[in-house]
Amino acid sequence: MFDLDSLIQVALKEDIGWGDITTESCVPADLHATGAFIAKEPMVICGLFTIPRVFNTLSKDVTINLHCQDGATLLAGTTIAEISGPARAILTGERTALNILQRLSGIATRTHEAVNEVDGTQAKICDTRKTTPGLRELEKYAVRIGGGSNHRMGLSDGVLIKDNHIASAGGIEKAVMAARKRVPHSIKIEVETASLDEVRQAINAGVDIIMFDNMDTSTMAEAVKLVNGRAMTEASGNMGEKNLREVALTGVDLISIGALTHTVHAADISLKIGSARESV
Amino acid sequence: MFDLDSLIQVALKEDIGWGDITTESCVPADLHATGAFIAKEPMVICGLFTIPRVFNTLSKDVTINLHCQDGATLLAGTTIAEISGPARAILTGERTALNILQRLSGIATRTHEAVNEVDGTQAKICDTRKTTPGLRELEKYAVRIGGGSNHRMGLSDGVLIKDNHIASAGGIEKAVMAARKRVPHSIKIEVETASLDEVRQAINAGVDIIMFDNMDTSTMAEAVKLVNGRAMTEASGNMGEKNLREVALTGVDLISIGALTHTVHAADISLKIGSARESV
Amino acid sequence: MFDLDSLIQVALKEDIGWGDITTESCVPADLHATGAFIAKEPMVICGLFTIPRVFNTLSKDVTINLHCQDGATLLAGTTIAEISGPARAILTGERTALNILQRLSGIATRTHEAVNEVDGTQAKICDTRKTTPGLRELEKYAVRIGGGSNHRMGLSDGVLIKDNHIASAGGIEKAVMAARKRVPHSIKIEVETASLDEVRQAINAGVDIIMFDNMDTSTMAEAVKLVNGRAMTEASGNMGEKNLREVALTGVDLISIGALTHTVHAADISLKIGSARESV
Amino acid sequence: MFDLDSLIQVALKEDIGWGDITTESCVPADLHATGAFIAKEPMVICGLFTIPRVFNTLSKDVTINLHCQDGATLLAGTTIAEISGPARAILTGERTALNILQRLSGIATRTHEAVNEVDGTQAKICDTRKTTPGLRELEKYAVRIGGGSNHRMGLSDGVLIKDNHIASAGGIEKAVMAARKRVPHSIKIEVETASLDEVRQAINAGVDIIMFDNMDTSTMAEAVKLVNGRAMTEASGNMGEKNLREVALTGVDLISIGALTHTVHAADISLKIGSARESV
Amino acid sequence: MFDLDSLIQVALKEDIGWGDITTESCVPADLHATGAFIAKEPMVICGLFTIPRVFNTLSKDVTINLHCQDGATLLAGTTIAEISGPARAILTGERTALNILQRLSGIATRTHEAVNEVDGTQAKICDTRKTTPGLRELEKYAVRIGGGSNHRMGLSDGVLIKDNHIASAGGIEKAVMAARKRVPHSIKIEVETASLDEVRQAINAGVDIIMFDNMDTSTMAEAVKLVNGRAMTEASGNMGEKNLREVALTGVDLISIGALTHTVHAADISLKIGSARESV
Amino acid sequence: MFDLDSLIQVALKEDIGWGDITTESCVPADLHATGAFIAKEPMVICGLFTIPRVFNTLSKDVTINLHCQDGATLLAGTTIAEISGPARAILTGERTALNILQRLSGIATRTHEAVNEVDGTQAKICDTRKTTPGLRELEKYAVRIGGGSNHRMGLSDGVLIKDNHIASAGGIEKAVMAARKRVPHSIKIEVETASLDEVRQAINAGVDIIMFDNMDTSTMAEAVKLVNGRAMTEASGNMGEKNLREVALTGVDLISIGALTHTVHAADISLKIGSARESV
Repeated sequence: MFDLDSLIQVALKEDIGWGDITTESCVPADLHATGAFIAKEPMVICGLFTIPRVFNTLSKDVTINLHCQDGATLLAGTTIAEISGPARAILTGERTALNILQRLSGIATRTHEAVNEVDGTQAKICDTRKTTPGLRELEKYAVRIGGGSNHRMGLSDGVLIKDNHIASAGGIEKAVMAARKRVPHSIKIEVETASLDEVRQAINAGVDIIMFDNMDTSTMAEAVKLVNGRAMTEASGNMGEKNLREVALTGVDLISIGALTHTVHAADISLKIGSARESV
Repeated sequence: MFDLDSLIQVALKEDIGWGDITTESCVPADLHATGAFIAKEPMVICGLFTIPRVFNTLSKDVTINLHCQDGATLLAGTTIAEISGPARAILTGERTALNILQRLSGIATRTHEAVNEVDGTQAKICDTRKTTPGLRELEKYAVRIGGGSNHRMGLSDGVLIKDNHIASAGGIEKAVMAARKRVPHSIKIEVETASLDEVRQAINAGVDIIMFDNMDTSTMAEAVKLVNGRAMTEASGNMGEKNLREVALTGVDLISIGALTHTVHAADISLKIGSARESV
Repeated sequence: MFDLDSLIQVALKEDIGWGDITTESCVPADLHATGAFIAKEPMVICGLFTIPRVFNTLSKDVTINLHCQDGATLLAGTTIAEISGPARAILTGERTALNILQRLSGIATRTHEAVNEVDGTQAKICDTRKTTPGLRELEKYAVRIGGGSNHRMGLSDGVLIKDNHIASAGGIEKAVMAARKRVPHSIKIEVETASLDEVRQAINAGVDIIMFDNMDTSTMAEAVKLVNGRAMTEASGNMGEKNLREVALTGVDLISIGALTHTVHAADISLKIGSARESV
Repeated sequence: MFDLDSLIQVALKEDIGWGDITTESCVPADLHATGAFIAKEPMVICGLFTIPRVFNTLSKDVTINLHCQDGATLLAGTTIAEISGPARAILTGERTALNILQRLSGIATRTHEAVNEVDGTQAKICDTRKTTPGLRELEKYAVRIGGGSNHRMGLSDGVLIKDNHIASAGGIEKAVMAARKRVPHSIKIEVETASLDEVRQAINAGVDIIMFDNMDTSTMAEAVKLVNGRAMTEASGNMGEKNLREVALTGVDLISIGALTHTVHAADISLKIGSARESV
Repeated sequence: MFDLDSLIQVALKEDIGWGDITTESCVPADLHATGAFIAKEPMVICGLFTIPRVFNTLSKDVTINLHCQDGATLLAGTTIAEISGPARAILTGERTALNILQRLSGIATRTHEAVNEVDGTQAKICDTRKTTPGLRELEKYAVRIGGGSNHRMGLSDGVLIKDNHIASAGGIEKAVMAARKRVPHSIKIEVETASLDEVRQAINAGVDIIMFDNMDTSTMAEAVKLVNGRAMTEASGNMGEKNLREVALTGVDLISIGALTHTVHAADISLKIGSARESV
Repeated sequence: MFDLDSLIQVALKEDIGWGDITTESCVPADLHATGAFIAKEPMVICGLFTIPRVFNTLSKDVTINLHCQDGATLLAGTTIAEISGPARAILTGERTALNILQRLSGIATRTHEAVNEVDGTQAKICDTRKTTPGLRELEKYAVRIGGGSNHRMGLSDGVLIKDNHIASAGGIEKAVMAARKRVPHSIKIEVETASLDEVRQAINAGVDIIMFDNMDTSTMAEAVKLVNGRAMTEASGNMGEKNLREVALTGVDLISIGALTHTVHAADISLKIGSARESV
């Protein structure tokens, strides 16, 4: 999470602008406050480490006492963390901290549900590059916390040869050879296929992973048999709206779901500021 | 949209990393391609101006031909824009352009629905500060495009006095006076209230706007009568899950809905690359 | 003051460049020094919190002991603050710290004089957008410290409709309606007027604030009567060269003065380094 | 002026914030306007090249037609430049462009007056490091345009040994030797002196430049004779309040004046927008 | 090469500082010049695309006419490129452009030599992470241009399990399993081994690549037989000082050489400015 | 070293990318480790202060115990420093820390050798602007640590008039006069000469420093006599391949060597991680 501070700077700056004029007007600089982050619905919590990072950017004197760890499944009403410090910093940072925490917990929660849907199969749930600009690392972390696994992080740490690449290169085999020559030996090569014939070509080209794009489940099951362990297999294409268990039972190794990150229900979390008193 | 280029830089950088190794391997540098952005479901389109900004960051030679304008209501299957230019730039920028466009169109679409729900009443639908870190300006723009209006952009261009501020300042009147003294005369003062008694205090303090926080609709209707035009009125609190029309019929001026931006369904848009040929 | 560290970085960097080669050559790294900031003329001091920010950017071991608070009226010869720490950091940071402190104190002092000139009237002295590039927030803070109040901070937190806007929109009323539709409900609308006729139009358009631009004081007095409390009123136009009291006695609510920030006499402050000794 | 774009970005950003909401509301995007920058008082104009840089940051379609060059002496009423382009960009950029131009012209004008005061003597007027944070390069440029010459730009391109450096190093000679050993051979060494005795020590140490700090003019005249061409000589210390001609007649080579940049009267310049029409 | 402009900005800024005062003094702003980049010794040229990027940062009016392409083997005396444009921009940018070009060409040249040494074997020459801070992407590009292939670009696009990782994880097998669980499925897993026993463990753990660290060539030959195609093999450890052909003949797939990038002989290239004339 | 943290951020970011996935997988977050930096060959060590800066960017809990100081001459096998802290931070930061340390020590070592070669003469060894983009300040520091002295840091803190400048200005004398008029009085003026005739012109123009470019040593000796102390003298031009002692014996004051920084042998240093245990 090497760049988190930059994101937090951007987030605080766009919210605070010239200053939190309400808080500066109404709340004395030396007022101390305490509060609690509360889960208002069931969720898999994610992003707890961002809470102190947000508030400590505003004041080193804010302390956070976490009551759980990322990945914990919480019931509605659970206290997630307690906060204590200058009232101004707590009030000013509240919205930014919640905006991050609620989004990540929403992603982890949805991922967890998807993982549960395919429980008992060999299929792993994984994410895509359909993430929010600037938040990819955090959102892919939330997928891991929810029990999912990551697809490539971006265009440079995985090769995914799609139809346009194949057409440009002059066929699957030529595309695969071109990629092998260019990319570090640490990186695997995946090809997107839309038919059994393309699956066959991909196998012959010796690719490491074969994606089945928008195939119906019976074709997919046949494709898995065809591959027969010679490559990893991945189901893809509007998986968010599919019966995931049915897909998983085709025997695919991976099911990638764009909706995990592009259509997120923010988990309902509130910061309840319980008491405030003049510091001595 | 003064900062859009920074966001696009961040988004492209986190996606591209060291390079789009698939495209660099498989697609010749001088290959030319054309394509079309297609709406795959009904939507209010939003963010069209970001498309050339994304692709032209990668290559000045990409041209975009827009078929509609932000705010247009599109049927499934509509061509949104045509793209033409170096195949590499089009393939590399595709995901980043779609991630932005789909999110903004999702927000505009949901806002438009909410605006329609309260059609014929005086209530305006407005947003909150529950936006994605780094995207506030774009997301609030999408709300306007969807027919909504903006609440304050951040903590410095509006005063919103909440319970903690009131407690710290020693009452509503003291809080309002403190704010008036501090803030530019161009900025209005709003107070959050949770009961009719607090509404009365707010009126007496001469505030410009009164927020009814989590009130049931009958109390809210009474509150509106109590205010009787002496201030603007705003309904707030999990409005995304409410019957908006019922709320609007209480006579409030504004209904603010966090879910417009924190719980977004990405509009389904695809980039179909139709043909590609060697450039002369 | 969210961005102060960036400004200090820029200021130190443009001064220090590759390094303070004089100090690095002549002053041992472990030499300790103490010193005092002295007011060399009467002033309203402003910007004290920037002193530790400057020196601590160079060394965490510099400590500052403030003898007064922002807004204090000081006589010539007053000790403002004591400094203690590594001699190198103190010598290297001296000029940058003074450049900021002297400018802000100059602004606060001039504002204080202007506020005194209108003492006993209802008029508030306020600033404009005629500030130094990069220093707006600090300079507007200095105006508040000097007893003035702020006009809008920039183009996005206040509407100020001038002659060109009116001409473009097709009249005052249309301009006001267009603005109301676009801007957050937290923001007031001000119109610039140059004649009593324009003042009448502004009143009819229901604006929140009316600016009298470059009016003579008798016309201004008439305008105030015309408005009769239906809007705030602001006197503007080379106010730095005017008899402020005469302007104030017209009954205007606000007098905005560009010279407060665009024509500043740096307050005379020196850092006297009293003793230096090898640290143990 | 390698960094000018950064400064302009900062300046525009702090002014525009979320957007020029007045102009966006009232002025159509396709409206074209023309205007003229007018000198409202006599001045030495400076900073003309910044005008297109400001406006072209907002729109590539703004064109500037300069009527004079930096350093020209203008009478009140002179047209400095004409501007033409999208009305929105012109209105939004106006204040930022003027803030820079007025400040630089104010500095050039004051410098020009000081240079005239010492006309016919050998003394050159030069600046100091008492510049506005972030604007040093521009302000020192304005001094050159006004006919002055620059002192060192910062701490790394000149050695200036002051009393604290001498005390730390153990005498003038030791300080000079230490500096010679450390600094590039391209850089000269200057020592600050407060008495004839210190002047003698500086001569003996073989320094390149000797500064007379806060000496009265008769002592200074004696010091110049003592130096007798073996080093450059510089008069320093509240020179802004001195009879510069008297100082110059002592025979010093340089008179450095902090007030050239720390106490600036912004030159009065306005942008008159003459006509505006819908673009075809 | 997404970030090249940032690097060029940094490089130009650290060289130019406040300005190229020699050129600004001596060379008229409207003087036009032409010149040629000449190889002064045999080399594989690399980095040609950076030349226009450097000069066009200073002036859009500089044009570069390349006489060859990256990867060309040049004799001493060859003209690499011609340059034409404002004399100031050419003189000011010269050193920065050469500093980059000479370094990259030095790396490509040395890589080419190493590739030739192992010609006819199956071994590929590859780089390491021993690159210059800030230049990794460019330096690894130079390795590819010289005919080498890239190892992982950094810590996030390849797993390389070393002795400390193994010790921490509790053995090779546990380390491999832990990595598989965490990393995207697009990424391969490599283990560093120092003995035949460790090679056996790595094979059993099913790793994708096995590194032989500082093994003598006979042990390495045995290790290659042991692996027998079940994983890729890599020779590592001060390879810059080794007889590469002997290493290659052990049958390893990859030889990684830190010295390719950490001990570079800058290729000797000069910019000869042939003629300069006043522009019309 | 004002900007070191930026460089370290860039270096760590390009190495770490999304994360050190090997270490995150295999090494527990609470594992503690110790280690030692060992010189593997004789060297002048340089850059020790960068070690804590690198590791503390990753974790404040890493502590470094230095066993020597910059400039110390070390034998092979010497322990340079001990490190202790979280195992993850130590493993992740290792390569970045070594990349910097090895490069700087390589430069200091080579400089030290060159200084020794001219021992007993008056000649000083100095560097050039042929440094690595982004590392100039550090590399010039390494030259000082190796016993060399610095040439100008960049184009703005020294005037060096070369053939093209002379041709553009219309002769040496005109060029020198133009420069004197423009540059701060703190900066010296140097002229590059290629013949005795040009040396004579430079003397007559009263320059401060005369560079002999690519002269053979006998001509250089004559040139030194000709100058006869009226200016500093500098030998330049592929000095890295010359017999430095022979050059020094011509009597020149300075010998500038580009190879000190453009052709660097990284000093061989390793980080040996000796023990690791679970923290309590």
